[in-house]
Amino acid sequence: MENSWATLGVDLHLDTPAAMASGVRRGLTDALREAVRGGRLAPGTRLPSSRSLATDLGIARNTVADAYADLVAEGWLTARQGSGTRVAERAVPGPVAAPRPRRTGGAPTYDLMAGRPDVASFPRAQWLKSARRALAAAPDDALGYGDPRGRVELRAALAAYLARARGVRADPDRIVVVPGIAHGLTLLGTLLHACGLGRIAVESYGLDLHWERLDRTGLRTVPLAVDDRGAHTDALTGHGAALLTPAHQFPTGVPLHPDRRAAAVDWARRAGGLILEDDYDGEFRYDRQSVGALQGLDPDRVIYLGTASKSLAPGLRLAWMVLPAALAPEAAELKDAHGAASSTLEQLTLADFLTSGAYDRHVRSARLRYRRRRDHLVASLAEHAPDVRVTGIAAGLHAVLRLPPGSEQTVVQAAHWQRLALQGLSRFRHPQTAEPPLDALVVGYGTPSDRAWEAALEALCRALP
Amino acid sequence: MENSWATLGVDLHLDTPAAMASGVRRGLTDALREAVRGGRLAPGTRLPSSRSLATDLGIARNTVADAYADLVAEGWLTARQGSGTRVAERAVPGPVAAPRPRRTGGAPTYDLMAGRPDVASFPRAQWLKSARRALAAAPDDALGYGDPRGRVELRAALAAYLARARGVRADPDRIVVVPGIAHGLTLLGTLLHACGLGRIAVESYGLDLHWERLDRTGLRTVPLAVDDRGAHTDALTGHGAALLTPAHQFPTGVPLHPDRRAAAVDWARRAGGLILEDDYDGEFRYDRQSVGALQGLDPDRVIYLGTASKSLAPGLRLAWMVLPAALAPEAAELKDAHGAASSTLEQLTLADFLTSGAYDRHVRSARLRYRRRRDHLVASLAEHAPDVRVTGIAAGLHAVLRLPPGSEQTVVQAAHWQRLALQGLSRFRHPQTAEPPLDALVVGYGTPSDRAWEAALEALCRALP
Repeated sequence: MENSWATLGVDLHLDTPAAMASGVRRGLTDALREAVRGGRLAPGTRLPSSRSLATDLGIARNTVADAYADLVAEGWLTARQGSGTRVAERAVPGPVAAPRPRRTGGAPTYDLMAGRPDVASFPRAQWLKSARRALAAAPDDALGYGDPRGRVELRAALAAYLARARGVRADPDRIVVVPGIAHGLTLLGTLLHACGLGRIAVESYGLDLHWERLDRTGLRTVPLAVDDRGAHTDALTGHGAALLTPAHQFPTGVPLHPDRRAAAVDWARRAGGLILEDDYDGEFRYDRQSVGALQGLDPDRVIYLGTASKSLAPGLRLAWMVLPAALAPEAAELKDAHGAASSTLEQLTLADFLTSGAYDRHVRSARLRYRRRRDHLVASLAEHAPDVRVTGIAAGLHAVLRLPPGSEQTVVQAAHWQRLALQGLSRFRHPQTAEPPLDALVVGYGTPSDRAWEAALEALCRALP
Repeated sequence: MENSWATLGVDLHLDTPAAMASGVRRGLTDALREAVRGGRLAPGTRLPSSRSLATDLGIARNTVADAYADLVAEGWLTARQGSGTRVAERAVPGPVAAPRPRRTGGAPTYDLMAGRPDVASFPRAQWLKSARRALAAAPDDALGYGDPRGRVELRAALAAYLARARGVRADPDRIVVVPGIAHGLTLLGTLLHACGLGRIAVESYGLDLHWERLDRTGLRTVPLAVDDRGAHTDALTGHGAALLTPAHQFPTGVPLHPDRRAAAVDWARRAGGLILEDDYDGEFRYDRQSVGALQGLDPDRVIYLGTASKSLAPGLRLAWMVLPAALAPEAAELKDAHGAASSTLEQLTLADFLTSGAYDRHVRSARLRYRRRRDHLVASLAEHAPDVRVTGIAAGLHAVLRLPPGSEQTVVQAAHWQRLALQGLSRFRHPQTAEPPLDALVVGYGTPSDRAWEAALEALCRALP
């Protein structure tokens, strides 16, 4: 015992000099714990008395006794009358599995995946300015648990902004801040399902992630055909709810035709239906003023969903829903039950960013930048791939490149060989879609940084037929 | 028509001078939309031709035509060959309900509710410093959607901190950042239920919010009796999982006795059970070193849950789970499916706050402050309410004041008459608890600001028998 103990004493000094310096007892506790944990002190081993260890180490006996007591309290040691202090029988856990290596290798060199903005142009300095002002002005209770709908400062700023920029009829009491549109869909799907709804119409091309979220809540997603006038909202009869992207259909890129906007609202009123309007990139329209939100036509029948993920950065995890008065408290309560609130400081920062005008300035400059990229894309394609028809480019951060029938797979494969990440249109097709598939590429021209853009575009041109 | 139109023209100037200045077409579009929305232009009304309105207003005809086209696209107007431009029939939505007034009035003057830290002492300047450094150092991809487990910088900082300060065996790959412990419990409950578990043992005194989250996932919560040695973990046989607060039972305030720590881990190994360790305020222990986390005894059987809600502020919405290797990917995937990620900027800020030492400094100074309050509380009670026994004060942000049998209701009522918010112990009792209720108050002495503390304490003393 004395021998093995001496070894431990040596280990102490070798292993934890910093800990020893910062507190003898703490250092001793840590070293003993490590010795037990690492198996150097086997289960059942009787430790020296506190007196003898104290003498060995030249420290106070109480220090040793305290360290023993700490480790007894933590369960590493046991102390029994008459049998002294021993290493607990259960104190050797199984080995911790080695950390799994992160997936690397095969990462693409060029990225034209749709659905992400150019995060390299995130306005860091302006954001930090807003954060500083927001933190300085925040009342103490902003740091507490807070209103499940989100901070009132942000909801007020959003109400004003959305009315002005998107024609949304919003008041702060009917806004619920969520960590993303997808989470909003989880909440809304749960509420609709609880109301007895069994299915929801979605566009036959869209985000499978959103369909999955709705599926998870118990709703079945049923596709509505999409053509060059948007979704067939004239076929909504028999449905109780619909998820639409009216300003800019994702991913085909067409705005919902005025007749179909009207048909959607008519249906909702006639049938008591609810429209979930996903306005993911409504700010970005290039050739004329943005189409206003459908929600403005009937705020009691249309739920508006917006996000900072495209206009600023997905990492902020800030999005919002504007709800009919009756639904807002239910949605807030459910959100609270899910425990998925957003940081209040980040909310206050966005509120300042909106009210200070920084948001408008950023959107304006991003719009110009994306527009230049779009024009560049169109010109390059006209030169290098004249047979490819480019559609869906009046707005948004992506374009659809129509390909000869049957060629999509081949072109996507060719792109991957160029180490270019992008997706075919079929990737966005609802599995129950009746219409024959269209061959096309979905090109996210907003995704790369300015540095990476030219090379990505060249890789795209090389991959095209 | 000309008359009504002239009225609209006047309204234009009266309503939206700023909009007119910023763009004639935009101003006209907004004014027309408002006129339709507000009912000044009734459904079916035929608008003047673009030529005649342009002449009336002294603007270019194309500007009017563009404004009409915008509003047709948005669904406010219709344009039909031969019948000109009319206000759409469906363009008058029902009135938006007036915002409901926020609940006010009856708000307590003094706040000694348990479970919240003193947010007035949140280290704003230091936090902003960390935010600045984090934002400057963040790679662009930190602003993207990111790893569902959370930013690797934060997981690495947490792994180091938790090993050092709480004896947790953590590696970054097994940490999942969540927006709160409650959301973590939602994820874990869902996973356990999916594995076929029907119930989970909880402490007979605890947070009903947590029980509700677990209930929602389909698990039934079954109470384990709690006494002055903590929860009866020797009665876990037959269970598959248990939620415990080993370092500092909430709300009774006792640490789990070493024998019971051992019994819990023994049970988990024998029965293949899983322990959910809620270490909500493990940093705050006053009279000696903190009891290390139970998780250190068996990281494959114990899931560690920690949070910044008590040590910093609930508004950050930052918490973490340390999971067995097999569970970490599942929990991350489920979290992703819930769409409840935390802001990456806030995560990077906390990472900097931890690695720069600011977290340790803050916890140390908060610990001193809370300790002074606790001592003040104990001394005041000894003077003003000598019959009240104070327990659970070795750690944490609250104390339990034991009252004569049958008097809890009366004292809580007396406190409310003093406009003092606090809760009786019965508020935290699991409804299926077999043991007779204990009469006590749960006093959150961490909650008030320094300014409000003295007065709150005086109000408490007045309310006590």
